[in-house]
Amino acid sequence: MSKQTELDQLLRTVALSSEELTGFDRRSFLRNGLTLLGGAGLAAAAAADPGMPPNVPPWTKRLGSGVTTDPYGKPSPFEADVKRRTVEWLTADKIASISFTPLADLKGIVTPSGLVFERYHAGLPAIEPQQHRLMIHGMVKRPLILSMDDLMRFPSTSMIRFLECPANGGMEWRGAQMDRLQFSHGMLACCEWTGVLLSTLLEEVGIDKKASWILAEGADGSHMSRSIPMDKALDDALIVYAQNGEALRPEQGYPVRLINPGWEGNTCVKWLRRLEIGDKPWYHREETSKYTELMPDGRSREFSFVQECNSVVTSPSPEKPLTKPGKYWVEGLAWSGRGKIKRVDVSFDGGVSWRPTKFTSIVLPRALTRFGLEWDWDGSTALVQSRAVDETGYVQPTYTQLRDVRGSSSIYHKNAIHTWKIENNGGVRNVQIS
Amino acid sequence: MSKQTELDQLLRTVALSSEELTGFDRRSFLRNGLTLLGGAGLAAAAAADPGMPPNVPPWTKRLGSGVTTDPYGKPSPFEADVKRRTVEWLTADKIASISFTPLADLKGIVTPSGLVFERYHAGLPAIEPQQHRLMIHGMVKRPLILSMDDLMRFPSTSMIRFLECPANGGMEWRGAQMDRLQFSHGMLACCEWTGVLLSTLLEEVGIDKKASWILAEGADGSHMSRSIPMDKALDDALIVYAQNGEALRPEQGYPVRLINPGWEGNTCVKWLRRLEIGDKPWYHREETSKYTELMPDGRSREFSFVQECNSVVTSPSPEKPLTKPGKYWVEGLAWSGRGKIKRVDVSFDGGVSWRPTKFTSIVLPRALTRFGLEWDWDGSTALVQSRAVDETGYVQPTYTQLRDVRGSSSIYHKNAIHTWKIENNGGVRNVQIS
Repeated sequence: MSKQTELDQLLRTVALSSEELTGFDRRSFLRNGLTLLGGAGLAAAAAADPGMPPNVPPWTKRLGSGVTTDPYGKPSPFEADVKRRTVEWLTADKIASISFTPLADLKGIVTPSGLVFERYHAGLPAIEPQQHRLMIHGMVKRPLILSMDDLMRFPSTSMIRFLECPANGGMEWRGAQMDRLQFSHGMLACCEWTGVLLSTLLEEVGIDKKASWILAEGADGSHMSRSIPMDKALDDALIVYAQNGEALRPEQGYPVRLINPGWEGNTCVKWLRRLEIGDKPWYHREETSKYTELMPDGRSREFSFVQECNSVVTSPSPEKPLTKPGKYWVEGLAWSGRGKIKRVDVSFDGGVSWRPTKFTSIVLPRALTRFGLEWDWDGSTALVQSRAVDETGYVQPTYTQLRDVRGSSSIYHKNAIHTWKIENNGGVRNVQIS
Repeated sequence: MSKQTELDQLLRTVALSSEELTGFDRRSFLRNGLTLLGGAGLAAAAAADPGMPPNVPPWTKRLGSGVTTDPYGKPSPFEADVKRRTVEWLTADKIASISFTPLADLKGIVTPSGLVFERYHAGLPAIEPQQHRLMIHGMVKRPLILSMDDLMRFPSTSMIRFLECPANGGMEWRGAQMDRLQFSHGMLACCEWTGVLLSTLLEEVGIDKKASWILAEGADGSHMSRSIPMDKALDDALIVYAQNGEALRPEQGYPVRLINPGWEGNTCVKWLRRLEIGDKPWYHREETSKYTELMPDGRSREFSFVQECNSVVTSPSPEKPLTKPGKYWVEGLAWSGRGKIKRVDVSFDGGVSWRPTKFTSIVLPRALTRFGLEWDWDGSTALVQSRAVDETGYVQPTYTQLRDVRGSSSIYHKNAIHTWKIENNGGVRNVQIS
């Protein structure tokens, strides 16, 4: 009997005995939930080509396409629904607006560059790299104008770090519940960033001993600008020209941007054209009328740079409902602007009891960290939460704890424990419990 | 004076005083090499629009495009030359062929999914994930057929690991020198892979105590198949459905493949449809007539799974020539199938003297590792080499050392120290020295 005939027979055999095979013993991970499909789909595909043995799909019997059919590849057409999305009513127009990362469909910790959320203050500029310049001036001994070629000749370094808009989840402050993970947490991404440490460039220009702040300014029409304390600039701030191995994407600031690891995304100025060294903050538009938080006493919390410890369960989620009772792999993402994630617990009863999770990715400072645990869903309603702790000991707060300090007038820095309600049909809704 | 006018004036001032500014002191990294361009390109751009102040390019004065103009983003059109390429004469046809990763243009350690090299034995199949099945059978208690949905319910894990074809650099064994880094080393990539540990699935099916080998078979027209020892299957072999955060790309085996970290790429069977558990290797076509090495005594070295420690300088390289004497950031990649890279040294005189480098990325086992060092090029010819050492103490061999053991009839597992010759015009050629 040929190998192929044996395989075909076995495929049919296993199909016919699926009843028997579902009687797994108690050790089996999928004992309640496994769908043992016997190749009905395969048989249907084969039926279209009567010359083929049953159960063998067409792609197994034919040559495929050749190399460099697409010299820069794309996802399978079957993944077309995995894309950035907008919320039409959220901003006044589509130019100065936001799109969201499809977190529910992502795995691991790297966000594909084509799916990183967008945030524009004057739209996406189309910059010619040969014409772009980065100027460094102000309280320095040797002001500089750098072309991209100049920048490439400085020592280079790479780091995997998350990027998050401080308005991520901002709609939830006052109780709005976005019924999609993509919208409740999708202003979040994690990439490998490569470039020149800002400290290297500051050594090159020679900063004045009194210098304590740096203004970073973008080349886009908004001239997006933020004041950055010198401590951060000398720590891990990176002048970035590459993302996930290749040139920075246009949406992410091509040809060059600032990345302040763990800090508000808006401080990571894109299309960076100017760094001015000074001795006080500039109080520009985007650090006064925007990106400050209105506190309960009517005052504004300003220069709230750090994205505090946060987490969310990505599956189950509204986009990833449960299908039937049985075992599931529950997973999610945790991150902290202060360092590494130390621990994540998950509750299935709205915070009454907690179970530890394990990390299923590398754990890096100021990077997304993937956690997961097994869960046997009995088909009843459940309230699923995750609670992260970072290496500084900071524990992700409840909504009550967060509002006790910050009130509910803010848009920014919402990092409260999030709740998904599992309905008894397996559907998942965004609910808010204190 | 408005901020804008001040900036414009400063841009002009710095342009006019560029002579003065190039007189950097000796501490300056770019003291010999820096091109202090005064915005000639910017002025040219501005000239096209007489309503704009000089030196301000058009994109700084206009709204850009809006969000989700491209819901799945692409690189800037200025990066169109960064793409996979083929060598026409290398294989008999374009279906069962190879394309190469453009290593010279890549940064950090992550390879963008769209640029990962391709290797097909019967072309790229277009598989419908809903119809695809993975069968696990043979010496097991509970044979299984898994749909993709079934597979997603098992515990998931992610790891960043390199992937390399053992024929990488194979043309160099007999002295052919490909004058492009993309062709000399470009069957190499590094991605974050996510999926289910093979050991988890083996626990599910319950393997016979006598089982010691696994056959992995692809669903493409070649039915690509390799025998894998049980030790590897129980160690870190991963059944992968995601790559760099999103679904596995079609070229990489969508919807599911095997990854044996650090092992020959061909063992990492793509479009995986079958795992058969047995007690001896199968000696299939791709582990006998191919993927064995002809040794000097006429015998074949078989099951040579591990990709040994290797490295290459990516800049300078034929694609990244030097432009003029001065300081450069010299960088490259090192990797080992046996674990972490421990040390990389670089020579500029063909191996007579060596200088230590530093790692500029995270250092992970069986992953690409980025190294770099400063080099002050005096304009004369040079022979640039890198030599990596892994955590087991294995030192990358010279060509003489490698040929002493393996002869020169092989196509596979060329990991000798590579040499780039820098010409005195800054051009870079691939030369082979013993």
